[in-house]
Amino acid sequence: MSDFKNITDLLIKFRDERDWEQFHNSKDLALAISIEAAELNELFLWKSNEAIDKERLKEELADIFSFALLLAEKHKLDVPSIIKDKMKLNGKKYTVEKAKGSAKKYNEL
Amino acid sequence: MSDFKNITDLLIKFRDERDWEQFHNSKDLALAISIEAAELNELFLWKSNEAIDKERLKEELADIFSFALLLAEKHKLDVPSIIKDKMKLNGKKYTVEKAKGSAKKYNEL
Amino acid sequence: MSDFKNITDLLIKFRDERDWEQFHNSKDLALAISIEAAELNELFLWKSNEAIDKERLKEELADIFSFALLLAEKHKLDVPSIIKDKMKLNGKKYTVEKAKGSAKKYNEL
Amino acid sequence: MSDFKNITDLLIKFRDERDWEQFHNSKDLALAISIEAAELNELFLWKSNEAIDKERLKEELADIFSFALLLAEKHKLDVPSIIKDKMKLNGKKYTVEKAKGSAKKYNEL
Repeated sequence: MSDFKNITDLLIKFRDERDWEQFHNSKDLALAISIEAAELNELFLWKSNEAIDKERLKEELADIFSFALLLAEKHKLDVPSIIKDKMKLNGKKYTVEKAKGSAKKYNEL
Repeated sequence: MSDFKNITDLLIKFRDERDWEQFHNSKDLALAISIEAAELNELFLWKSNEAIDKERLKEELADIFSFALLLAEKHKLDVPSIIKDKMKLNGKKYTVEKAKGSAKKYNEL
Repeated sequence: MSDFKNITDLLIKFRDERDWEQFHNSKDLALAISIEAAELNELFLWKSNEAIDKERLKEELADIFSFALLLAEKHKLDVPSIIKDKMKLNGKKYTVEKAKGSAKKYNEL
Repeated sequence: MSDFKNITDLLIKFRDERDWEQFHNSKDLALAISIEAAELNELFLWKSNEAIDKERLKEELADIFSFALLLAEKHKLDVPSIIKDKMKLNGKKYTVEKAKGSAKKYNEL
């Protein structure tokens, strides 16, 4: 079985032990991801690009992944597939010729 | 090889073809995750909890996972491990006895 | 003197007493605004649209305004002017005929 | 009349011409603030601290202020008052003695 499914199953078990599925509508799961993403950002606030606490980084990244996996599971999405599909789309917006070495957004290339 | 490593390798290949690693410092990768999380939130803005475009959901979730996997790879983190570690921590903050059926944050339980 | 300038002067005084201007580059001020916006969102997480703690709402909104006013001041922006300019722009994207009673984004009208 | 009330009245008028109040529940207004804050952050993504487009900065800051003023108005909040109240609170968490010249969060001082 896939590693994505394995870890998602553990997250589902944790959620169901606490009878939390009732709160996990899609809008609130998306909101939770963004709140955790902001907690990750906070580790870097006023600081330089790499000056951070690795233990806190692990915790905040774990929280982001957790809610993202729960939202993916709710919609029966295969995570590697949706990533590959998006890479295909991004490959057209950011062709190697146009985008190599550039940080510009696709509509500015 | 783990599915997490497989998909991360594809993301690394996409990044390196475009010589983008130079931009991928930790602070900007975290920033990118939060920007994508906001784009996901935007699908739900002014709408009800489940009234969304599934194709857009897949794209925005894919973007969140992509930057999160790149940040995890940059710090050589094993994603299932950091999630399990965080679940252990969360299990203490949110014991089944105290947290079952409750949406309260741990410091309000 | 304008009320915006009065309250901004108090924020500047608070900042300078603590010798914090050195940290207040534009990127970090923007980051701070988004972190506070996420703390505001957190008051609503798993909850219904109006079920919140008014005292916490005041505190988080105050934080958002504080960093936004500091960023505006840094760039010598007159806040009412930039809002009116944006309303002019929005008035064209969201004409009354097309947008009345609709929650659609302008590119979907 | 206060400058805050003046500009808020214009925002209310814009909203009511389009019959948009029906969408402006507190949770969605908070969500809108965070989405605009992310659009502001995006101006700095992969870039240095001051390397930005000033016109875009004005637009995104204006959007943040607009939704924040609408949320404040919805709860009948006086913006300068809530900012002063928060500064009082912050003054205790970040006394000049402890916090001067430091970027540390209050619980790390």
